[in-house]
Amino acid sequence: MAGPVRIVLLAGGFGGARMAHGFALLGDRVELSVIGNTADDLDLHGLHISPDLDTVMYTLAGMANEETGWGVRDETWSAVEMLARYGQPTWFRLGDHDLATHITRTTRLRAGERLTDITADLCRSLEIGAQLLPMTDASVRTKVRTADGWLDFQDYFVRRSHADEVLELRFAGIADARPSAEVLAAIHTADLIVIAPSNPFVSVAPILGVPGLSQRLLATPAPVVAVSPIVGGRALRGPAAAMMSSLAGLAPTSASIAAHYARSHPGLVDILAIDGSDADQADEIRASGIAPLVTRTVIAAPDDRGRLAAELVDLAG
Amino acid sequence: MAGPVRIVLLAGGFGGARMAHGFALLGDRVELSVIGNTADDLDLHGLHISPDLDTVMYTLAGMANEETGWGVRDETWSAVEMLARYGQPTWFRLGDHDLATHITRTTRLRAGERLTDITADLCRSLEIGAQLLPMTDASVRTKVRTADGWLDFQDYFVRRSHADEVLELRFAGIADARPSAEVLAAIHTADLIVIAPSNPFVSVAPILGVPGLSQRLLATPAPVVAVSPIVGGRALRGPAAAMMSSLAGLAPTSASIAAHYARSHPGLVDILAIDGSDADQADEIRASGIAPLVTRTVIAAPDDRGRLAAELVDLAG
Repeated sequence: MAGPVRIVLLAGGFGGARMAHGFALLGDRVELSVIGNTADDLDLHGLHISPDLDTVMYTLAGMANEETGWGVRDETWSAVEMLARYGQPTWFRLGDHDLATHITRTTRLRAGERLTDITADLCRSLEIGAQLLPMTDASVRTKVRTADGWLDFQDYFVRRSHADEVLELRFAGIADARPSAEVLAAIHTADLIVIAPSNPFVSVAPILGVPGLSQRLLATPAPVVAVSPIVGGRALRGPAAAMMSSLAGLAPTSASIAAHYARSHPGLVDILAIDGSDADQADEIRASGIAPLVTRTVIAAPDDRGRLAAELVDLAG
Repeated sequence: MAGPVRIVLLAGGFGGARMAHGFALLGDRVELSVIGNTADDLDLHGLHISPDLDTVMYTLAGMANEETGWGVRDETWSAVEMLARYGQPTWFRLGDHDLATHITRTTRLRAGERLTDITADLCRSLEIGAQLLPMTDASVRTKVRTADGWLDFQDYFVRRSHADEVLELRFAGIADARPSAEVLAAIHTADLIVIAPSNPFVSVAPILGVPGLSQRLLATPAPVVAVSPIVGGRALRGPAAAMMSSLAGLAPTSASIAAHYARSHPGLVDILAIDGSDADQADEIRASGIAPLVTRTVIAAPDDRGRLAAELVDLAG
């Protein structure tokens, strides 16, 4: 294949950032566009915070705190310490470097700029080569129904430590959202679409739910490969396994991930990359009409990220 | 006199904070209300910043950076470092602790709360006993005419290091401003009014310029004592001496301070506290209809602040 392989990665925060990093490590071999989930954005302290975009951005900039999986490494916490003295909510911990991102984003959003343009400039400032695209410039907000009623996503996820059973999800505003021209162009020219090992229900579903977006993915000749976020019956991180049960009535397995994508978006996912420890589920995955790719999907270490990315790039050929 | 002496202090930033600290050091002997200048407030990064109020607040909280005369001691600068990476303006340096003050203030202002109430809560959080009152809840903005045209105050003061000759001042919005009920009540019940050793043109003039405020000061039986910001022909800090010449055509002396107050607000100032080094100007001050009080007005050290404050309190008796 002449020229770089054009990858479009659908990404939440944690798994999305690691997968994006893997492709970035391949350098000139790929041209990476990340479509990031913005349905877990929140407004706090008058600031517009985009946790998933930022996790991807900081990771690609080499600034991420890999231990926590969010925020910036070598962060300071002076502002949050003062916010606490002022009796302001501090359950969503904002580091001082991180604050500057939200301040810059918010100032420009208030001036009427598109999140897409702002994100592009932030990434340029941090010398990121990949294109990071919000799934939409419209406001979409995930709402989570629990035994205590409907909660804002970050209220459920961070403040209540995703301890509640999730009974229902709603992406408020999604009916009026549209993919940006940049998202559509990236999909149109992609050689390979990758769905990151992100939570299918709260990270990937909002992206696929933006009206028109999944249709464009179905229409592209590029193969669509999803990376399972489940290894050995457990989610790599977060509440994906619990949601698999409470929302889809499925066991927390990679085969269930295949069943879920086949059911929610028939014909969309061509290949599911699963970890070797789940190799015994290959037939079950095939039965969902999805081809299994058995590999190593645990990508905590940068070497593993690059290796998995390289394996996926080969699927474009 | 039974009970605490009720002091109302008209204060800018640097000199105002030091004088306020002096009264605070007297503990239960005084009940201090500081009326702070808000005409040098600015909006930056979508945040409402009140530099003079904050300098007084941090000083009274024992948190001030006494070396710089602004901001918080042991500050970190992570946010401003990132803002610089993002190409945002950083000439007005905002520390990380300090940012939390602006974030809290701005969030509450946007929610429709009064600056007076917000400032009271911030001070309560920092365990400040004194009452810190913005001169008004309305928006007043000092504009500075220079050879390069009209500038915003902080543009002139911080960004251009008050290097321009000031040809004219304007307090935009002041005609529509009103003193808050709290300011009027504090003046009404004061035993002594003190004008801090702040810049008469850009710190004190806006306070006295709020419609109705100087009339209330004239109407109160409490003596009004100003502390000269000039010692030995020089301003303790900032451009007061240069403005004395360019705006009032006066030499930079304590006698000129007396002449300026007598001219701009006839009958308002009863006493001018001057430094011993300016004792030879006592007759000239008296000629302005103002009684000189010769003392030590250099109050860099806390002991000196408390001593000067105690001397002024005696004037209420």
